[in-house]
This record gives sequence, structure tokens and C-alpha cells, in this order.
Amino acid sequence: MTFIEKLSCAWEKNNSLVCVGLDPDTERFPSSLRDVPDAIFQFNKAIIDATHDLVCAYKPQIAYFSAESAEDQLEKTIQYIQTEYPDIPVILDSKRGDIGSTAKKYAVEAFERYKADAVTINPYLGFDSAEPFLNYKDKGTVLLCRTSNRGANDLQDLDVGGMPLYQKVASMITEQWNFNKNCMLVVGATWPSQMSEVREIVGDMPFLVPGVGAQGGDIEALVKAGQTANGTGLIISSSRGVIYASEGDNFASAARSVVVDLREKINLHRN
Amino acid sequence: MTFIEKLSCAWEKNNSLVCVGLDPDTERFPSSLRDVPDAIFQFNKAIIDATHDLVCAYKPQIAYFSAESAEDQLEKTIQYIQTEYPDIPVILDSKRGDIGSTAKKYAVEAFERYKADAVTINPYLGFDSAEPFLNYKDKGTVLLCRTSNRGANDLQDLDVGGMPLYQKVASMITEQWNFNKNCMLVVGATWPSQMSEVREIVGDMPFLVPGVGAQGGDIEALVKAGQTANGTGLIISSSRGVIYASEGDNFASAARSVVVDLREKINLHRN
Repeated sequence: MTFIEKLSCAWEKNNSLVCVGLDPDTERFPSSLRDVPDAIFQFNKAIIDATHDLVCAYKPQIAYFSAESAEDQLEKTIQYIQTEYPDIPVILDSKRGDIGSTAKKYAVEAFERYKADAVTINPYLGFDSAEPFLNYKDKGTVLLCRTSNRGANDLQDLDVGGMPLYQKVASMITEQWNFNKNCMLVVGATWPSQMSEVREIVGDMPFLVPGVGAQGGDIEALVKAGQTANGTGLIISSSRGVIYASEGDNFASAARSVVVDLREKINLHRN
Repeated sequence: MTFIEKLSCAWEKNNSLVCVGLDPDTERFPSSLRDVPDAIFQFNKAIIDATHDLVCAYKPQIAYFSAESAEDQLEKTIQYIQTEYPDIPVILDSKRGDIGSTAKKYAVEAFERYKADAVTINPYLGFDSAEPFLNYKDKGTVLLCRTSNRGANDLQDLDVGGMPLYQKVASMITEQWNFNKNCMLVVGATWPSQMSEVREIVGDMPFLVPGVGAQGGDIEALVKAGQTANGTGLIISSSRGVIYASEGDNFASAARSVVVDLREKINLHRN
């Protein structure tokens, strides 16, 4: 089964476009997890157990593991999802990007070491930096297009021949990089008008949409701007807004409540 | 001491602009290292011991460690250089780039976990993705500008208001991102004319120059195009061309010969 097929099944099974971002920041853990040796994994496990029937994907952010020398807990987290909830795809958020020979090693990191179903990458180095990822036909590759942060406009909005760079990137990926039909794009929730412009360019290609929750994106606007005709096409990711809904011992049930609410708010506006 | 000061001392002490890139690919190791548990570290150590008096920096490429679950050997490699040869700066080549809250974690990974003196990052997400790195005043941040690979032109050469994107990136970094005077740029050796254009824009800002050796950049052309008035300003990096000069047990002495030769060829053309 390809990533896109797995994603489509998860959209349908859980009637959800919500992705939970796993950004485990140990400083924000409840005190009961403070001295636990595999606290990061235990935190993630509790969040996953509390939300697995409500989401279309999980997105662990590798920086939170690397900063703590906790690659082993990232491996355990992904393995746990794939063993317990094999219908839910895992998108490793690592935004790698390098020349071809190095990119091959990063693809091994994402797809063979961590066994992620999909990975985020950065397009700045061009096609040959993406190709080693794209060659994994059954895996998904999510390319940065228009990100959700303040500084996104520094480069991504620059005008290149009558269109902003992020639109040029979207069209290049659609026309030249998507030969295995396994590309997706990061398009931030904070800019719905830009999302609808990208949707025009790329057809039904799925978008990974960060920026709801902590970053404040408007749900109605983004769903209307980004969904495909059948009411899917979006992987709407919230991290901090979900996993730190409570910093007490009820963090997992608080996370569940936020996801229930977010799924409902999103579904209200789906075709 | 800031990174730039440490680099300047190393340029002078070893009379060298050569940086050795540590891209340890276990498949290319000599057979004597095949079953050694910390083979990656042992390989790096041999290369470092054989070249430390000839280089201005080492540049470990993190993908080669991550693909092998060998973060511990990356830590050991950097620690070895800093203990045995503390005058030689270490540039961690990881090309990270993410929104601010995540970028903070990547900065912790590079500067606190691995204790690198400098790190490479990707500018596509804009200023706030670089800021957490730049705030480490004494560390160096090397931003991708014009890379050495084939696909570099896909995005980096696009015309933005009368100049290619890589020049816009160079000027943005010079004018707005370099408030702590700790920025550097990646400018590939494969395009000397582009390097001289970037030199015009950025003044004396150091360039990390990949693409000599295996990627075939012309040494005379790049030194003339990229050096500053005092004959420095360049960190000319060769990885595969040095460390796999021999795939036999004499790999370290073969690497030394290549570096001796490369340093000499470069120094011929320095101001």
C-alpha cells in the first residue's frame, strides 16, 4: 500500500483530517514524568493512546528528540504507532535537504532506520536533493512550499517571473518531481488565500498544514481554501495546542478533548 | 573566542584554507574496519590524526551518522577533535531549517549536544528560522546560498527582481541576519562566476565551499573568485576526494597526501 492510499484509508476510517504533531518538550511535561527514564516515549504513548481513533496521521518532530539525545525514543514511538495502530501513517518531520549522495543517507534515516511512512524535506537544493526520497515509491515525501511562520515571506513570497516563489515551487513539484505520485506539500494554515492559490496549481495533491492551534490559523478559512472536491486533501497538524492542552497529569485526556473539538470544527466545513 | 576568530587562527596556523569533510560511509571502509564496533569513529580518528596540521576546519556530515544510528560516534568524533586539536574548528553539516520554536531545539542539537563550533542551515523558512542559531554569538552559522549540486539552479537561480535568488539571499543575510557577525555562506566550487558575484555582495564574510574533489570544481578559478584581499575568506571542503583516496588500509596516509596537494594547489593562487 502506498502512503497516499494509507492516508486515504485513515481519513475515512477516523473521519478526520487531524494530524497530531509530537513535539515532546521535556520542560513542559507533567511533574509525574520528570524523572522517568523514557519519559518522552511515555508521554507520546499516552497522547497516541488517547487520540488514535481521532486522527489521520501522527507527525513526530525529530528536533525534540535530537536535542535530548533521544533517537531511541523516536524509534520506539514510531514502532509503537505502527504496532498498535497500524492504520495510522507516521510523517517524520525533519525537513532535510542536501546534495544527492547525502540525501540518500537522509532517506535511509527516515525510511529505513525510523521506518516513517512519509518525511518532510526542504526544496531549496533542487530536484536531485529530493530524488532519493521520491524513489521510495510507497513512501510519502512532503516538500516545504509555503510555511506557517512569520519569516516565511522572506524567501517564499519573492516574485519570480510573475508569481511568488512558493507557487513556482508548487508547480515545479507537480510537473517534474511527482513522477511516483508520492509528493505532498507543506502549506501553512496561517495564509488561507495562499493555500487556495496552491490548490489551483497542484490538483488533488495532499497538503500538510501546520499552524492551527498555537500558531492561530483560522479553521473555516483553511478548510474551504485547501480541501479537495471530496472533502479531503488536508493533513491538518496541531502540536503544542494538543499535547500541552494541560500540563498536569490529565494531559492525555485534555489532548483528546482538543482533538475531538478540532476534528468537529474541521468536519463542519468539509465538502 | 568567536568562531570567526578561531577560524582565522586556523587559517594562519596551518597556512590552509582546506576543510576535510567527514562523510563516513561504512560501505567504503577498508576491510580491517568492517567488524569494529566503533568503526566510524576509528575511521574519522585516523583521518583527523593524519590531517590536523593541514586543515582550517573539519566538517562532519550528520546524515552519515544518522543513517547508521551512530550519533554517539559523531559526539565522540567532535569531542576528539576538540580535545586533541582544539585549534581546529568543527562545522556540523546538518542543513537544518524550521520554525522558531523547533529551530531552537536544532540549535541545542548542534551547539549544546554536539558542541559544534558552527553549523550549516537552510534559509528557505526565513529569518525567524535562523535567529535561534544566530543568537549563539560565539558560534558560526553557515547559510546555504548557492550550492554545488546539479539541481541547485531549480530554485537558487530563479530571477527575483533582476537578480538570482541566491544573490538576494546573500544580500538579505548580509544586511539583516548578520547582526552578531557570525554568518557565513555555502557557495559551491562548481560555479566560480557565481562565487565572485556573491563576494561582491557580502564583503569579507567567509564562504564554505563544497564541490572540489569528487564534484570537480576548478581550484584556481574558485580561489581567485572567492578569496578576500588578505587571501583568506574560504573554507574549501573536500570529503569523498580525501577520505576515500584509498579504500585500503593506507586510507589515512592517502588522505594526507591529497590534502597536502590540495592545500598547495590552493595556496598557489592566494593573494
